[in-house]
Amino acid sequence: MERYDLIIVGTGPAGISAAITAKIRKKSFLLIGSARLSEKVQKAHTVSNYPGLGPVGGEQMQKAFLDHLAQMEIEITEDKITLIYPMGEYFSLQGMNGMYESRSIILAAGMAPSRMLPGEEPMVGRGVSYCATCDAPLYKGKTAAVVAYSAEDEHEADFMAEYASKVFYFPQYKEEVHVKDGIEVIREAPKEIKGGFKADTLVTSGSEYKVDGIFILRESVMPSQLVPGLEMEEGHVAVKRDMSTNIPGFFACGDITGKPYQYIKAAGEGNVAALSAVGYLDKLGKA
Amino acid sequence: MERYDLIIVGTGPAGISAAITAKIRKKSFLLIGSARLSEKVQKAHTVSNYPGLGPVGGEQMQKAFLDHLAQMEIEITEDKITLIYPMGEYFSLQGMNGMYESRSIILAAGMAPSRMLPGEEPMVGRGVSYCATCDAPLYKGKTAAVVAYSAEDEHEADFMAEYASKVFYFPQYKEEVHVKDGIEVIREAPKEIKGGFKADTLVTSGSEYKVDGIFILRESVMPSQLVPGLEMEEGHVAVKRDMSTNIPGFFACGDITGKPYQYIKAAGEGNVAALSAVGYLDKLGKA
Repeated sequence: MERYDLIIVGTGPAGISAAITAKIRKKSFLLIGSARLSEKVQKAHTVSNYPGLGPVGGEQMQKAFLDHLAQMEIEITEDKITLIYPMGEYFSLQGMNGMYESRSIILAAGMAPSRMLPGEEPMVGRGVSYCATCDAPLYKGKTAAVVAYSAEDEHEADFMAEYASKVFYFPQYKEEVHVKDGIEVIREAPKEIKGGFKADTLVTSGSEYKVDGIFILRESVMPSQLVPGLEMEEGHVAVKRDMSTNIPGFFACGDITGKPYQYIKAAGEGNVAALSAVGYLDKLGKA
Repeated sequence: MERYDLIIVGTGPAGISAAITAKIRKKSFLLIGSARLSEKVQKAHTVSNYPGLGPVGGEQMQKAFLDHLAQMEIEITEDKITLIYPMGEYFSLQGMNGMYESRSIILAAGMAPSRMLPGEEPMVGRGVSYCATCDAPLYKGKTAAVVAYSAEDEHEADFMAEYASKVFYFPQYKEEVHVKDGIEVIREAPKEIKGGFKADTLVTSGSEYKVDGIFILRESVMPSQLVPGLEMEEGHVAVKRDMSTNIPGFFACGDITGKPYQYIKAAGEGNVAALSAVGYLDKLGKA
């Protein structure tokens, strides 16, 4: 497997900025995320406080970013990272489409608008999971609830249905749902997760569902679930001013590191994170 | 005197970004600096890592910033701040063109490329000064050395000559010098400041000059000289991630807060500093 110098997770302003600087500094890297960049940027009405762009609409801003990436010949690797594991000298990344390896990481995955459900946190790995594709085989002949915040995750429910005997699908988006026959689509909002040692009940706005496993597919995975051992501070990744975290070689930038949630702040931090990663890699090379 | 909510010192990317956000947040503020913005930006060949602008030349970038300011109806107050004094509930600012008052400050004055001379620091206020206009009257009938890093400061030497009996002028720039007759122009570089309790000698690349006062006119004043009591860290203003300093209501952003010296980092920090200042002002208002 190719081991990159750097993998940047996230294609919002922070990740884009980090990628541009990594390119200039001639590092081998992947920029992993959505080729549509950030949904949040695209849907923005007017952004007035990104100096140099003037007041712009979200789509126009998106275009300016895409043009810049194209001019620098930076490609986006479309994938969603579900786990980043520090292996000592490198990091192992698990994506929906495959595995990756990198000497350093910049996490620029943004903040999920949704918070954890009551009862969710203690049940992670004990009946609560964030990746149906990864864990579906464990649910052969069992009952699973899939809570999805984007229509893009419908294939995860379909995949789950290949193993589980029963799948409840809770779409948290407005678009029409297209999942396999046999999957029960329920338009209710998740409210709480209950259970003993293992999660066994999903409480919703309308009812309660007895299940063996609950899959919560958010736009972003909670950083502390994504990276074992990553130090957090009030719900955000704890970073120093150079965007380093408590894990050597692991940097973070943008909304995931805390407020204000602003594009120009994110872009500035992406640049700093990339230069710090370059410094880290240069030291590694000399060691 | 009008007391502003906020005064932003510096018109590079950090100051511009802070001003744009302050405008959006409807605060009364001044943006003080050069209407030509940052010399450093203007002279940049190509800036490739400011996401959304694509690779641009310095003049093009300058224009993008000026256009943005014009669109937001933000004007620049042309002045050079030489002292900022915390008065408790507000700050008093001394400029070359006048005095100002403000409830909060954002210092975005950049980093002077030049370092302090050997012997300079202990002599500040004891024969070494950064503002000829301010202190000239104290040198009536005396001898003064004026070290200038920009042709714009020639009028300071002229003003000094109205009081001092002898002015040595040391231009540290290449352009032709136009100062009053009687001022002795010497093309030598300053090397050291000597003296006992008071500075009395300027050592240069060519000679030594016995003087009563030494005026050093750099593009930027050293932050610790500019603001009494401001905490520094390795030559930069010490800031937290919200860009606050050790002085309540006093924020800093951009190069002056440390490396990397990057436009996008500076712009991001300007935004954060402005939002932190807004938060500080809102609390003041409620108190």
